[in-house]
Amino acid sequence: MADVLIVMGSDSDLPSMKGAAEVLKELGISFELTIVSAHRTPERLADYGRTAAKKGFKVIIAGAGGAAHLPGMLASFSSLPVVGVPVKSSNLSGVDSLYSIVQMPPGVPVGTMAINGSVNAGLFAAQIIGASDTKIRAKIDKYKKNLEKSVLDKAKKIEKQGFDAYLKTMEK
Amino acid sequence: MADVLIVMGSDSDLPSMKGAAEVLKELGISFELTIVSAHRTPERLADYGRTAAKKGFKVIIAGAGGAAHLPGMLASFSSLPVVGVPVKSSNLSGVDSLYSIVQMPPGVPVGTMAINGSVNAGLFAAQIIGASDTKIRAKIDKYKKNLEKSVLDKAKKIEKQGFDAYLKTMEK
Amino acid sequence: MADVLIVMGSDSDLPSMKGAAEVLKELGISFELTIVSAHRTPERLADYGRTAAKKGFKVIIAGAGGAAHLPGMLASFSSLPVVGVPVKSSNLSGVDSLYSIVQMPPGVPVGTMAINGSVNAGLFAAQIIGASDTKIRAKIDKYKKNLEKSVLDKAKKIEKQGFDAYLKTMEK
Amino acid sequence: MADVLIVMGSDSDLPSMKGAAEVLKELGISFELTIVSAHRTPERLADYGRTAAKKGFKVIIAGAGGAAHLPGMLASFSSLPVVGVPVKSSNLSGVDSLYSIVQMPPGVPVGTMAINGSVNAGLFAAQIIGASDTKIRAKIDKYKKNLEKSVLDKAKKIEKQGFDAYLKTMEK
Amino acid sequence: MADVLIVMGSDSDLPSMKGAAEVLKELGISFELTIVSAHRTPERLADYGRTAAKKGFKVIIAGAGGAAHLPGMLASFSSLPVVGVPVKSSNLSGVDSLYSIVQMPPGVPVGTMAINGSVNAGLFAAQIIGASDTKIRAKIDKYKKNLEKSVLDKAKKIEKQGFDAYLKTMEK
Amino acid sequence: MADVLIVMGSDSDLPSMKGAAEVLKELGISFELTIVSAHRTPERLADYGRTAAKKGFKVIIAGAGGAAHLPGMLASFSSLPVVGVPVKSSNLSGVDSLYSIVQMPPGVPVGTMAINGSVNAGLFAAQIIGASDTKIRAKIDKYKKNLEKSVLDKAKKIEKQGFDAYLKTMEK
Amino acid sequence: MADVLIVMGSDSDLPSMKGAAEVLKELGISFELTIVSAHRTPERLADYGRTAAKKGFKVIIAGAGGAAHLPGMLASFSSLPVVGVPVKSSNLSGVDSLYSIVQMPPGVPVGTMAINGSVNAGLFAAQIIGASDTKIRAKIDKYKKNLEKSVLDKAKKIEKQGFDAYLKTMEK
Amino acid sequence: MADVLIVMGSDSDLPSMKGAAEVLKELGISFELTIVSAHRTPERLADYGRTAAKKGFKVIIAGAGGAAHLPGMLASFSSLPVVGVPVKSSNLSGVDSLYSIVQMPPGVPVGTMAINGSVNAGLFAAQIIGASDTKIRAKIDKYKKNLEKSVLDKAKKIEKQGFDAYLKTMEK
Repeated sequence: MADVLIVMGSDSDLPSMKGAAEVLKELGISFELTIVSAHRTPERLADYGRTAAKKGFKVIIAGAGGAAHLPGMLASFSSLPVVGVPVKSSNLSGVDSLYSIVQMPPGVPVGTMAINGSVNAGLFAAQIIGASDTKIRAKIDKYKKNLEKSVLDKAKKIEKQGFDAYLKTMEK
Repeated sequence: MADVLIVMGSDSDLPSMKGAAEVLKELGISFELTIVSAHRTPERLADYGRTAAKKGFKVIIAGAGGAAHLPGMLASFSSLPVVGVPVKSSNLSGVDSLYSIVQMPPGVPVGTMAINGSVNAGLFAAQIIGASDTKIRAKIDKYKKNLEKSVLDKAKKIEKQGFDAYLKTMEK
Repeated sequence: MADVLIVMGSDSDLPSMKGAAEVLKELGISFELTIVSAHRTPERLADYGRTAAKKGFKVIIAGAGGAAHLPGMLASFSSLPVVGVPVKSSNLSGVDSLYSIVQMPPGVPVGTMAINGSVNAGLFAAQIIGASDTKIRAKIDKYKKNLEKSVLDKAKKIEKQGFDAYLKTMEK
Repeated sequence: MADVLIVMGSDSDLPSMKGAAEVLKELGISFELTIVSAHRTPERLADYGRTAAKKGFKVIIAGAGGAAHLPGMLASFSSLPVVGVPVKSSNLSGVDSLYSIVQMPPGVPVGTMAINGSVNAGLFAAQIIGASDTKIRAKIDKYKKNLEKSVLDKAKKIEKQGFDAYLKTMEK
Repeated sequence: MADVLIVMGSDSDLPSMKGAAEVLKELGISFELTIVSAHRTPERLADYGRTAAKKGFKVIIAGAGGAAHLPGMLASFSSLPVVGVPVKSSNLSGVDSLYSIVQMPPGVPVGTMAINGSVNAGLFAAQIIGASDTKIRAKIDKYKKNLEKSVLDKAKKIEKQGFDAYLKTMEK
Repeated sequence: MADVLIVMGSDSDLPSMKGAAEVLKELGISFELTIVSAHRTPERLADYGRTAAKKGFKVIIAGAGGAAHLPGMLASFSSLPVVGVPVKSSNLSGVDSLYSIVQMPPGVPVGTMAINGSVNAGLFAAQIIGASDTKIRAKIDKYKKNLEKSVLDKAKKIEKQGFDAYLKTMEK
Repeated sequence: MADVLIVMGSDSDLPSMKGAAEVLKELGISFELTIVSAHRTPERLADYGRTAAKKGFKVIIAGAGGAAHLPGMLASFSSLPVVGVPVKSSNLSGVDSLYSIVQMPPGVPVGTMAINGSVNAGLFAAQIIGASDTKIRAKIDKYKKNLEKSVLDKAKKIEKQGFDAYLKTMEK
Repeated sequence: MADVLIVMGSDSDLPSMKGAAEVLKELGISFELTIVSAHRTPERLADYGRTAAKKGFKVIIAGAGGAAHLPGMLASFSSLPVVGVPVKSSNLSGVDSLYSIVQMPPGVPVGTMAINGSVNAGLFAAQIIGASDTKIRAKIDKYKKNLEKSVLDKAKKIEKQGFDAYLKTMEK
């Protein structure tokens, strides 16, 4: 049984959504990933929403673009927390995706991430699980420590080299 | 059997949506009007979408606000033409409703009206039925003639009175 | 006599508008396609609007960009249902096109599609005709079934291969 | 024969458009004012566009809201300079009106004013006539001098009274 | 020890944020509510972020408006899941609040709710706790059932009364 | 003495502004073109504004991007009609340029063109001159006839060839 | 000699701009306040810009709405730091004012505040003076301490009373 | 001791931020440049904010993108003037960065520059220091004179060559 269900509206969303899978893998959290289109496979959507909790999932991550109904409709069919990722759209830069996902009515929340924020969707799912699992929380702490260290290393380097030398390194 | 199904996400949308019902009444087209919430009654949504064609409806009019999934999800479940009305939202003036309804992916169109454009939704449903029904089309022609006449009457009045006298009439 | 009239404001809109023609062809619905510029050929616009119904068209599809007046003006001159396609503009990503088409006043509806949503315009025209033609409706049902099947096939493949293997396939 | 033709899409635009008439009156420039709806009276629109130059008008001022096609369509039918006023709309604050008027394609310009900028439309029409009429230009110079004087008077007053005393005067 | 920490940037946010507290109360989930201003009490912010997990909180709900840094900064200081509520701002309708909260960089997610979506913030916090607590999940299921029932009741009433009679009831 | 003064804020605006010069050339209207930066050469701006009418110019065309103050400030210093061109900016697609130019206060109009609409700026200047010069107006009529003919030719071609054959021609 | 020059485009901006004067008064920093309209008194604008430094001012605060050119043009004429306040406009909520002020080209900065952010403009001017004046900086430190204390007091009160009791106090 | 502290949220902001360093160098003003991430190194952020004044800095320049909290949080922790640079974001063109930086609440100002306006951030920091340092102010005057001269040279060249010859030079 996997802890997290990752779904997206189309396989063309996969490059934007893979970050969620990768970060969960890195944190050792089990997940299932598949395609569920709210608009082209509505019965599949309804089925996934109805059964997700029974199948043992604890969190759903859903990404979609344009008139992005997938996250909100899964939240309608399920009582699990749904994490929504607005996928950048070709014409409106993802503002349409963002508004379609975040502006849910009272009673049916979707925890919305930044446009194309799939890495954060994975992390947030981990934090949800970590809310009652100290081992996972320790892993997240470590993940954040590593992020911090990476910034500190770069800061040290830029202070030592000066900004123009550093810039030249970046261009290589 | 009614020709048009009018649904809205909440009874609070009724003041914005009543125009559709009124114009259909005026044109003598039968309709059913009810509440179907994509987010609070998803099974009812799925059911209405699946059965609308079998029940004999020819067109669906759906209005919703915010993350407005109702029109698009009905279009997913049904092959009938769906006319969507973005209901003005309290925070983003209906831009969220508009984007959530109009930006549908290829394969699942929603014919979208202006924000709060319910009168036009009724008229457009009539035009759809009128595409194969010359009696309805004649009624629409007459409806448009009346609109034209009403403008011409006002134009005549304003030309005769002058704009400042006319303005005073308006203020009364 | 063709059932659908497809017009666009400029031949530069053709790459964005061809989807409407292709989907109608696929569904076996007859259409005529030409260029009518609201701003450069206003008399032609008026003429097309006035005569479309008499010529036997049942639906008009009109695409235009920027200050996109073509769909709305055809809807002014004709009682036929007009399906509008906001063509993506070079400077404002099509938001100008969208607002110019969708925000029509009461009495003159345009059923508006997504920005560059010409495939859906074709499908919606078919749905309008299908409202009173069960053969067309059956074709649309089949078209939607095919879309569904295509998603299910991809879902099966991604579940079997795993997301990283699938991603590599996509990059090829 | 009047010099300026002022048209608006609906009599409900009159409160927003009266400024154009008032400023022309003040500058002693003749005008005709009436209602022409692009969407409800398209034949009237075409007629006004075709005949405006022959009737001796030198400038057209056109105001409309929402999907505001009136200024652009008059510019299509006429070679006269058209000054467009985006009327504030109830749902999108006039952004829809502005985009529908200003984003005209090459070949068909509309000189666009601020949202609800009807006073400026009148002034701009006067400036157009003043381009070849030194008497009108002198009147505009005087109009601008008066504006300047009015600001200088207020500045003097606020400097003398101090801002808090001045504020109290305003509240009265 | 309370399960949920609710903070807001100013007491003027309380009318917009009270929904979170009320829904948690209704679901029997313990919470603490206080004011933490990212900009006026930055040390308090840092302190709350650093200690929230140690104090036993499982979820943080943070609401703020304008340049709304509170949710994101708490997410920086803490590994707990942070649920962000963009409070409607006086000038930009909350779009500034929304963008400031949702557009977090990789590594520091904030689960963002709709503008003024505090009821959903409370529910989402409950869902997070419910991810590992079947009793809470049962309460959420019941909460959603009640919402559904309330819609169904209204639907029945509107179908029975007709829309115009129902409208009159609403106006009372 | 030239009739039209064309100024732009920077030589980097020239590719976007050349259309104005080209269309005036084509119509045989004399012009002067130079660079005046509102922000880097404010004294030059003031000087150009003050003297333009005395030098015999009849119209000013001004293009600028970003916080585009050039057109509005020239309109402050001069009583001539000013035609403004919002130059597309690198970060906000020219929305900033558009708002900075079009939203002028009462008393100081700028006739604003589309983003990057320099061809129309030239044409509009010609229309202004044509308001009292029938020879120029005749040239504009001819210019518009040519535009119309060019559309009709393409329409004929696309109707004859069919849209797919025409598309192939375009791709060559 | 005053340290800060506060100007605004119109006396109607005074209610939005008074905060700057009040906070400077509170901090004991001298200022002059007057009206300078970029569009109605351009010579006055140029004069104020040219002479501000010679008159001994150290900072300029300028507020304006719509196509708000005042702050940027003062920054063109003067080498003093200019603090800009976008005044909320009636139609576009101040987004036009904000873009017109903040999007200045390289070489001519304006330090831009929030829409209607006049209190911050006063504080920022104080911080600029405080950059080389430790007494002023101490006053700012104290001002910030007071803000902090005020939040802490409210926090204590809300924690003690509970949110519902506190809410009732607010409503009184 | 350096006068200006330049920080940015990530080394990927360096290409957008280098302009600040370069202009300060050119004006002979000392600065320190490093990386401080509000979200990945919040303790470092707090530390930099608390100590900047004690270390002798007079101005802080901070650049960040997306949910850009760095400038505002530094302004919370420090009484020094903070100059904020909204870095262009990949999805929302920097509108998110701009709103997150400029819309600060009363009491905590950030002097905001244009999107990617780092050169102006450097200049504005110089102007702040120049408010009490006539040598620096003289350098800024000279810098502005050079800008002016560069525009005048180009203007002379374009007037002499004509716009089409000049365009050809640009294309080389």
